[in-house]
Amino acid sequence: MSSIRQALLLSSSNCHGYSMLEFAKQEISSILKKNNVKQLLFIPYAQNDFDTYTSKIKEVIDPWGFEVSGIHAYPDPANAVMSTRAIFVGGGNTFLLLKRLYENNLVELIRNRVAEGNLIYIGSSAGTNVATKSIHTTNDMPIIYPPSFDAIRIVPFNINPHYIESADPETHKGETRDQRINEYLEMSHASPVLGLKEGSLLHVNGDSLALRGVAGAVLFRKL
Amino acid sequence: MSSIRQALLLSSSNCHGYSMLEFAKQEISSILKKNNVKQLLFIPYAQNDFDTYTSKIKEVIDPWGFEVSGIHAYPDPANAVMSTRAIFVGGGNTFLLLKRLYENNLVELIRNRVAEGNLIYIGSSAGTNVATKSIHTTNDMPIIYPPSFDAIRIVPFNINPHYIESADPETHKGETRDQRINEYLEMSHASPVLGLKEGSLLHVNGDSLALRGVAGAVLFRKL
Repeated sequence: MSSIRQALLLSSSNCHGYSMLEFAKQEISSILKKNNVKQLLFIPYAQNDFDTYTSKIKEVIDPWGFEVSGIHAYPDPANAVMSTRAIFVGGGNTFLLLKRLYENNLVELIRNRVAEGNLIYIGSSAGTNVATKSIHTTNDMPIIYPPSFDAIRIVPFNINPHYIESADPETHKGETRDQRINEYLEMSHASPVLGLKEGSLLHVNGDSLALRGVAGAVLFRKL
Repeated sequence: MSSIRQALLLSSSNCHGYSMLEFAKQEISSILKKNNVKQLLFIPYAQNDFDTYTSKIKEVIDPWGFEVSGIHAYPDPANAVMSTRAIFVGGGNTFLLLKRLYENNLVELIRNRVAEGNLIYIGSSAGTNVATKSIHTTNDMPIIYPPSFDAIRIVPFNINPHYIESADPETHKGETRDQRINEYLEMSHASPVLGLKEGSLLHVNGDSLALRGVAGAVLFRKL
C-alpha cells in the first residue's frame, strides 16, 4: 500500500466533446491499478437521489474494470470509508455535500486516511471543492448551511472548478468569475485559488502536484 | 410617518443601457419624497472600500435632491440606523454584507424598524438578498462564513437578483441558474424564489408587492 497521499481532483465529470468522465479515464484507471485497487466507494451526497446517481457512475466506471458501490448501501458510512482503499466524491451542490460529510463525521476521517496514504481520493466538481482547504470558491448556491466552510484540506489552497474566463454576455452586469475570485482574494483568510477548467484535473502525489487532462488552469494569488 | 413597511428591492444597481440606478430613479425618489425623507443612510458593507463606494452612490443620488451619508462615518452603526428614516444597502458580496450586519447587530434592528414602518429599506443586489428570508439564493461566492444564512426577512420568500434565463455557452457544463434555483427548491426548508431580472425591482408596500422597473421577474416554486 502506498504511504503518501494520492488524489485526483477533477474540475467536472462532464467536458464538452467527451462522454462522462472520459477525459479522466486514463488517470483514474492508472491510479487505481497502480495501487492494486479494484473497488471504489462512491459518495453521492452532493445530490439527493443517491441510487440514481450511484447507478450512473457505476455504469461508466465498472466497465473500466472496477466495482463501484454507493456509501449509502452501508449501515455505517464511517466504517465504509475505513474499509475502503479508494473513494470517489461526486459533484452536485457543494454546501449540501459538505454538510452531509460533517453530519456523518467523515471530514476528519477522510482527511486523516488520505494523509496517511491509506485512502485514494477522487473528486469531481463539488467533490473537488470539499477536498481543498475550504469551500470559499465554489460556484454553487448556498442552498443549505454547513457547520463550517472548512473542508478536507488534502491541498492547502482553494480550487474553483468549472473555471471559465468569461461566460456571461456583456450586457449582463453580475460579477464575472474572475471578479468573484478576486473578491475572495481580498479577504485576510484567503489562500491562492486554482481555477481548473472543465476537462482538467489535478493529480496530488505526495507533495507533488501535476495538472492533467485536456484543458488547463489559471492560478490566482493575492496582489 | 408611515406605519407600514416600505421597501424597494432592486435586482442590481446597473442595468444595460442605463446609467447607475437610473432605471430605479423614479421609484426611489417617489418613496422618499412621499415620506418626506431628505437623508439616506448608505450601508457599503458588501464591498471593502467604504469611502469610495459611498462617494459613488452619493454622486448619483445627491443630485436627485437627497443627502447620502455612509454608515461608517458614524461612531455607532446601530445608533445611526436608529436615527435615520431610510437606508440604502448596496451590492457587492452577500456573505460579507450579512456577516458585517450581524457583527454590528443590525439584522434584528433593521427587521424591527422596517416592520414598525419606521425605516424605509432600499436594497440592491446583495442588499436585496439580505432583505429576504435568507441568502440561500445569492449568486455570490461564499468568501466569508456568516453566523447564519437567515436574513432580515422583510419578505418571507427568497430572491435571486441578476436573474437571467441562460448565460453560459452551451459547451459549458456547470449548472445553469435555473438548475441552481431548483436545487434549492429540493430542500425541505426552501421557500419560493423570485428571480428578479436586471432592471427590475420589487416594491414592498405593507402587505402588497408590486414589480416595477424596466425588466421582469420569474417566480419559482416547489413542484
